[in-house]
Amino acid sequence: MYEILDKYNDPKDIKKMSYAKLDNFAQEIRQFLIDKVSKTGGHLASNLGVVELTLSLYNVFDFTKDKIVWDVGHQAYVHKILTGRKDRFDSLRKYGGMSGFPKKDESNFDMFQTGHSSTSISAALGMARARDLRKEKHEVVAVIGDGALTGGMALEALNDAGYKKTKLIVILNDNEMSIGKNVGGLSTYLSKLRADPKYNKLKHELDSTLRKIPSIGKGMAESIEKIKDGIKQVIVPSMLFEDMGITYLGPINGHNIKDLTKVMSMAKSIDEPVIIHVVTQKGKGYSYAEKNPGKFHGIGPFNCDSGEICSASGENYSGTFGSELLEIAKDNKDIVAITAAMRDGTGLSKFAEKFPERFFDVGIAEQHAVTLAAGLATEGLKPVFAVYSTFLQRAYDQVLHDVCIQNLPVIFAIDRAGIVGEDGETHQGIFDISYLSHMPNLTIMSPKCLEELRHILNWAVKQNFPIAIRYPRGGDNNSLKLEPLKEFSKGKWEIAYSYEKENSLKNDNSLKKVAVIASGKMVQHAFLAKEKLSKLPVNLTIVNACFIKPIDKELIKKFAENNYDIVTIEDNVIHGGLGSAVLQYVSTLNSGTKVLNLGFKDEFITHGSLDILYKLYGLDAGGIADSIRKLL
Amino acid sequence: MYEILDKYNDPKDIKKMSYAKLDNFAQEIRQFLIDKVSKTGGHLASNLGVVELTLSLYNVFDFTKDKIVWDVGHQAYVHKILTGRKDRFDSLRKYGGMSGFPKKDESNFDMFQTGHSSTSISAALGMARARDLRKEKHEVVAVIGDGALTGGMALEALNDAGYKKTKLIVILNDNEMSIGKNVGGLSTYLSKLRADPKYNKLKHELDSTLRKIPSIGKGMAESIEKIKDGIKQVIVPSMLFEDMGITYLGPINGHNIKDLTKVMSMAKSIDEPVIIHVVTQKGKGYSYAEKNPGKFHGIGPFNCDSGEICSASGENYSGTFGSELLEIAKDNKDIVAITAAMRDGTGLSKFAEKFPERFFDVGIAEQHAVTLAAGLATEGLKPVFAVYSTFLQRAYDQVLHDVCIQNLPVIFAIDRAGIVGEDGETHQGIFDISYLSHMPNLTIMSPKCLEELRHILNWAVKQNFPIAIRYPRGGDNNSLKLEPLKEFSKGKWEIAYSYEKENSLKNDNSLKKVAVIASGKMVQHAFLAKEKLSKLPVNLTIVNACFIKPIDKELIKKFAENNYDIVTIEDNVIHGGLGSAVLQYVSTLNSGTKVLNLGFKDEFITHGSLDILYKLYGLDAGGIADSIRKLL
Repeated sequence: MYEILDKYNDPKDIKKMSYAKLDNFAQEIRQFLIDKVSKTGGHLASNLGVVELTLSLYNVFDFTKDKIVWDVGHQAYVHKILTGRKDRFDSLRKYGGMSGFPKKDESNFDMFQTGHSSTSISAALGMARARDLRKEKHEVVAVIGDGALTGGMALEALNDAGYKKTKLIVILNDNEMSIGKNVGGLSTYLSKLRADPKYNKLKHELDSTLRKIPSIGKGMAESIEKIKDGIKQVIVPSMLFEDMGITYLGPINGHNIKDLTKVMSMAKSIDEPVIIHVVTQKGKGYSYAEKNPGKFHGIGPFNCDSGEICSASGENYSGTFGSELLEIAKDNKDIVAITAAMRDGTGLSKFAEKFPERFFDVGIAEQHAVTLAAGLATEGLKPVFAVYSTFLQRAYDQVLHDVCIQNLPVIFAIDRAGIVGEDGETHQGIFDISYLSHMPNLTIMSPKCLEELRHILNWAVKQNFPIAIRYPRGGDNNSLKLEPLKEFSKGKWEIAYSYEKENSLKNDNSLKKVAVIASGKMVQHAFLAKEKLSKLPVNLTIVNACFIKPIDKELIKKFAENNYDIVTIEDNVIHGGLGSAVLQYVSTLNSGTKVLNLGFKDEFITHGSLDILYKLYGLDAGGIADSIRKLL
Repeated sequence: MYEILDKYNDPKDIKKMSYAKLDNFAQEIRQFLIDKVSKTGGHLASNLGVVELTLSLYNVFDFTKDKIVWDVGHQAYVHKILTGRKDRFDSLRKYGGMSGFPKKDESNFDMFQTGHSSTSISAALGMARARDLRKEKHEVVAVIGDGALTGGMALEALNDAGYKKTKLIVILNDNEMSIGKNVGGLSTYLSKLRADPKYNKLKHELDSTLRKIPSIGKGMAESIEKIKDGIKQVIVPSMLFEDMGITYLGPINGHNIKDLTKVMSMAKSIDEPVIIHVVTQKGKGYSYAEKNPGKFHGIGPFNCDSGEICSASGENYSGTFGSELLEIAKDNKDIVAITAAMRDGTGLSKFAEKFPERFFDVGIAEQHAVTLAAGLATEGLKPVFAVYSTFLQRAYDQVLHDVCIQNLPVIFAIDRAGIVGEDGETHQGIFDISYLSHMPNLTIMSPKCLEELRHILNWAVKQNFPIAIRYPRGGDNNSLKLEPLKEFSKGKWEIAYSYEKENSLKNDNSLKKVAVIASGKMVQHAFLAKEKLSKLPVNLTIVNACFIKPIDKELIKKFAENNYDIVTIEDNVIHGGLGSAVLQYVSTLNSGTKVLNLGFKDEFITHGSLDILYKLYGLDAGGIADSIRKLL
């Protein structure tokens, strides 16, 4: 079916191919990607953008010795195809199948696992310094997107690399720009000029001359010195990267293997940190993805010919959040929304359109996003930072130090809380309750259903303290229709189901009593579990712990005093979670109340569908029912 | 005693003073600072460096309307003197006294609380955007050191400010450089030139002309575009800040009030983000501090005339860590040490001298430090990142995502764990157990005494998984001499004291049995508590929980089976801590074992001496003894 790809065995083959053959190979890989991802879903546009870039890397480097780190990592499909994994694409992102990210236990060619943004330069710098300490000679390459470069830690790493002049090649995969007029012509010329050995020699001579003049130094710290000699800036064309001590090569057309090969070979010859600025087109070669790279960034199965997504998904939490915040903001002029490069993913697109002045996309910069929100809040505005659970990890310190210590009314709209499924270990949102609930002053809430999220938001914007609202990926369970809670009182839980109430009983001790305290979507799972337990003689209560913090001590005490056993359910790791707070309080009551904590155990959770993973960890309806049965 | 300071009442007074009088005022403030801090201890050198800078700020701005954020905040003493708090300096950093950092409940002039580095630009940007949304007109100023500027979030904030062109004044307080030859002469000339309205007009015209040429834009994202038009760099002298879209003014002599006043007034007239590069001398005006600004950065009481510190402190954990790591590194070439601008504080000075190639100071960049360590570890090196507990908060995500997911053998040497005392809320190391112990794959240890730290380090470097070792500020309790544990087995605790063993009994049920499970220095407090309980009829065991994670389930089970009550003690918040892990496990045993968790409750802990704070939270010997008494 594929002339070149079918016969391809090993990265060594690439070095034997002519540029013409490599170009053909690129087209085959593209076809393969479109074909496979259309069936499994996955990250398409970014991978279509780096086909030639990846082939060129394998053409120039020898990754049995050289090292490579893929920033974020969802653009490593081509790398996977080239390193013995093309036959595993049918299992892409499925439970037990191939990961959508580089993973060390999948291949020796996956040298550093990634998932979150902006880590690659730091990791590669570590590898490069290890090499230098051991007097080894191989190359170390980091591939990072222009978006990821705005993450603070990438800049911290560049600053360090430039200062110490560690030999390292950073490929800046710049896919935000079209490859139109700006790239051809003059730019290609300039790039060739910069990559030309003569030019580099000249430049290095110039640099070393300048270094003899006092206070022309290395790194950012010293670029401050450089500034002091501003007059010299007129002589030396200085740029951001060069100011940081990084040699800049580019920009280069990221779909021209010959040019890429040339500039990468050139970079190898430079004994300092180098950044190669490569301009690629997201979605390249698939018209639907070229036109709408956002849609084809992370996508479910789709029709290759029409570009249509196979199943339209129903109402989800991101969309509900976005539409409700928009409604609230129409009347409340203090509402401002913040995102860290996740406008669409967090459901803020319409807000951004309607209120461009009250919408701040700060780039991939969660730390700054949180403290910016703190600053806005000190002035009386009501900032809402919409962010995925896993990415808020980046701003742990800012939430604690800048928001909670000052008790500022910032709202954290934490999307993708709980497991997210196919993205796997690096993206599961299973830690947020544990990393947030020990922060003094912070209130944490979670809606049991979509509609309740609307009411929680409306309540939250009226409060004067920090509030985190966590909600899961996707939408509600279709087979259930729960009544949303509409009024909230800090730390008060809802009794969502009561056997006694249903049966008009009062403090009935004829049956074993169990209170299931669940948070968020786990309330739905608890209801589904109840159905499975309908034949069991149990006096069951289901509590919607809409406040994860503070917990409802009064209610817990009542359960303890009335001989209930307690089962807590959360889609978070058990340690430091909601259940542990309940247990802690119960332990102070000396009531002998049994408490069973359900949640994720102490391990990272691999990729796979939500259904499979919930089941695996006993958090689906069946698993919860089993746990309750065992308790009885 | 002070001619000007004694009569000074209000910031408005400053605007009425001549430059000559302001210079005299500066000298008085300096004298006042040296006099006061010599008695109380505190941050001296940085405050001596910003006397003129602070006076100039009050000369130019009106902080009853204008806003100011002090990065880190330990350089805000002069600001405190000028805003009605000079009489509170005798209580500086004491319990119930004045904080060493800006604090909102202390004064309306403290508009944003700080403590950790690099937050000021984000916060100020938030304030500036709130102003713009409300169409208000005041100025917003951030004062940030050159060290803090290397923190990723400061760069994230600059990138955002420059892109959106929000009006904002950033004062870069550059105190790493001497104010020698580089500052006078040409530089002062350049600075005057840049601050001159004519020059700025010219520059703005030039800029707006260039903007008409396609692809000259704003912000860092677009400075990439700029690079593409590299040829234009020859025409416009471009610099790091300007590339990011920030107007640069400076450098300016930070001890010349007239120049500072001029350039700050100029900055007010620019309707875009401006950075003023101010060069100051740390310790300025006090010869001992000028010569040794590091020593006088954060200092205890000292003799004004001789510069001698009053009490030489004994052996401490930082020093023990540093000397032991140095010893280990002599034989083990894989050991590398990393610090984020805390070489001296973490005890790594000698290591840095002895092994400069194996020592990496990455600047104030904890995120990068951790992922750099991960990169080094993938190549078989054994990186040790020495960092204060409170600052590791910045790298929560990197520890989880880059180290723990890959199970890399990075060692985190967590100094200043537990309360640190006088630095207060922003610096207490009371969260690390809670933010680390829910991370899969991570082992957490803590030595009960100085000598044990040496043995733990020796054990840790031989393991092949990530290990966090937490230890407190200061040294051991002098009245105790505990025998260090020398051999370790993952998750095995030490019985440090046993009533039964002492009295040659075996499973003696004649007395009430209590097992005290303590970690780190709390083991010492437990021993001191035991002395207070000597008359109480109790069969006491003291366990050294040298492993905070994993816990010793076998031992806990034995206690549960043998009718012990359990008391856990940790210098960390209770939620998500060691005690909660013990309680969690006990709850699965259905043994009815009572568990009492001692630790810090859910609130931020103010400044004050360690003794006062331990007592206040019931974690001193007396408090622990009381808790045990109540349990019985």
